[in-house]
Amino acid sequence: MSNTSVLPLIEAEGPEAVAPCCPPLTERPFTAEEAETAARMFKALGDPVRLRLFSAVASHAAGEACVCDISDVGVSQPTVSHHLKKLKEAGLLTSERRGTWVYYRVEPSVLAAMGKLLTLGPAAA
Amino acid sequence: MSNTSVLPLIEAEGPEAVAPCCPPLTERPFTAEEAETAARMFKALGDPVRLRLFSAVASHAAGEACVCDISDVGVSQPTVSHHLKKLKEAGLLTSERRGTWVYYRVEPSVLAAMGKLLTLGPAAA
Repeated sequence: MSNTSVLPLIEAEGPEAVAPCCPPLTERPFTAEEAETAARMFKALGDPVRLRLFSAVASHAAGEACVCDISDVGVSQPTVSHHLKKLKEAGLLTSERRGTWVYYRVEPSVLAAMGKLLTLGPAAA
Repeated sequence: MSNTSVLPLIEAEGPEAVAPCCPPLTERPFTAEEAETAARMFKALGDPVRLRLFSAVASHAAGEACVCDISDVGVSQPTVSHHLKKLKEAGLLTSERRGTWVYYRVEPSVLAAMGKLLTLGPAAA
């Protein structure tokens, strides 16, 4: 199941072709709508357990991990599932069931869009 | 008053000399300690009003804004103050009182460190 529809404003044609939801934070004040979209992504990474799970998926071989590979973060399995669901809802992960296991992948276009938000524009350089 | 002591792991010698708290999210699974530090920064930007205030400061002339310049986000002055305090506590803004007004500045090294976290490593490329 893909969650790309959650963030329709991001359209990636490849790892380099990223159209982020918003300009760099240093470019101009965000509109209320841009802030809503971007805050959702930041909030998803604003929890230590979610961040550990996300980096476990992101750094796993081929950028994909079975839930069985990434549960070693000191919380219960239901809590792991809850946090993975939040990451999917924010568009940061996608998942696919293959046989017994669910596999999670990082959505590289979303990661790149968030990175772009944080680039330093002329005002801060 | 400077808040750089809030994030002692980040030592910047200039806009380009950033030693972030953590490796890129795609490099290896974060440790619990790294996740705590990084999640604090992401959480600070995980609120739409805070994100609008932050982008208002970041995009203002010379990367600095008086609180009088950035209060146009549809919330009360005490709420603006509360959110600016949260951004300072996360190390994203510093502030200085000059005469009547408090001026806020973006901490470029923190912004750069967050951007670096989100760079795509070999696993996701």
